[in-house]
Amino acid sequence: MENAIFTRRSVREFTDQAVEPIKLKALMKAAMAAPSAGNQQPWEFYVATQPNILKKLSEVGQYAQAAGNAPMVIVACNYNRGMRHADFVQQDMAASVQNILLEAVNQGLGAVWMGVAPKRGRMEIVRNILNLPANLDPFALIAVGYAADEGEPEKRFDQSRVHVLNGSTYVAL
Amino acid sequence: MENAIFTRRSVREFTDQAVEPIKLKALMKAAMAAPSAGNQQPWEFYVATQPNILKKLSEVGQYAQAAGNAPMVIVACNYNRGMRHADFVQQDMAASVQNILLEAVNQGLGAVWMGVAPKRGRMEIVRNILNLPANLDPFALIAVGYAADEGEPEKRFDQSRVHVLNGSTYVAL
Repeated sequence: MENAIFTRRSVREFTDQAVEPIKLKALMKAAMAAPSAGNQQPWEFYVATQPNILKKLSEVGQYAQAAGNAPMVIVACNYNRGMRHADFVQQDMAASVQNILLEAVNQGLGAVWMGVAPKRGRMEIVRNILNLPANLDPFALIAVGYAADEGEPEKRFDQSRVHVLNGSTYVAL
Repeated sequence: MENAIFTRRSVREFTDQAVEPIKLKALMKAAMAAPSAGNQQPWEFYVATQPNILKKLSEVGQYAQAAGNAPMVIVACNYNRGMRHADFVQQDMAASVQNILLEAVNQGLGAVWMGVAPKRGRMEIVRNILNLPANLDPFALIAVGYAADEGEPEKRFDQSRVHVLNGSTYVAL
C-alpha cells in the first residue's frame, strides 16, 4: 500500500463510475476510527448519490462545486448538544474527515473536503437540502468518486516551520 | 504497510528510546501534507525533548500527563492573525495532527493527541512554557515515542451512524 498521506490530493473532477457500497463502507469505517476528545465520537454521516441532491449541494457556494461533478457526497455531521467536550467537536470531526480522505486514496478513489461549519449560512442550506435533524449540524461535504483527471499531490513541506528546542533556543530540524 | 488508520491507538506510555531525527522529519512532512482551507497552511511546529520541559507540559492538566512519559512532545501551533480562512484554522490543524498520528504508526512509533485550543487557560500555560511568539497559538500537544505497552485499537465502527439517502428517505448502509 502506498502511503496515502503523501499521495492524497484534492480531486474535484470525477468519472461517472459509482462508488461501490463496499468502498463506501471502508470510508465509513475509517471515519469512525478517528480519535475524539474523551472518545465522544460526535459524528453521524449522511450519504447522497442522487443527481438532483448533488446539484443542490453544489450550489451551496462556489467552494462546493465539486459536489456537482461527483457520483457521491458524504455529509459529515456532528451532534450539537450533549457532547461532553463540545469545544473539541470541530477537531474530532476534522480528524474523521481526514481519515475519509486518506482511506479514499487507499480505495483507489479521489475526494475533496468542502468546509461547511462553522459558517451558519452554509450550515442552514445543507441542513435544509438534506432535512437533517435539529440535534445535528452539518460539518463538511466530502465529494467522492473516481478521479477524471491526473494530478500530483502539492508539495508543502517547509522545514523552516519546524522549531526544535535546544537548551533555551530553537534550532532547525 | 499496514493501514495506519485502523491500527492507530492512543499511546500514553513510552520506553526511554529517543525518536530518531529522520522519524521526526517524516512526522513533520506528514503534518504539512494535510489539506487546509484555501491551502492556507496555518501551522508551525515546536518540538521539545528536554525532560524539564516535558514535565512542565505534563502539568498543563490531567489530560496532558502523557507528555511526562514521552521522549518527545510536538506542539502544533497556528497563526492567530492574517489567515484568510480563519474560521477553518482549527479544522486545518486537526487534519494535520491526524496525519502526524497516522505517520507515527507508519514509523513504528506511538502517539497521543492532547487538546489545547480553544481552551484559553491551557493555551496560555503552553505559550509561557515554550515562549511562543504572540502571533502563534498552541493548538495541541502530541506525545511521541516508542510504545511501552501493547494494546489494540478501539473498535468504534457503528453502522447505524451511516444514513444513505434513497428517494426521500434514509436507509442503512
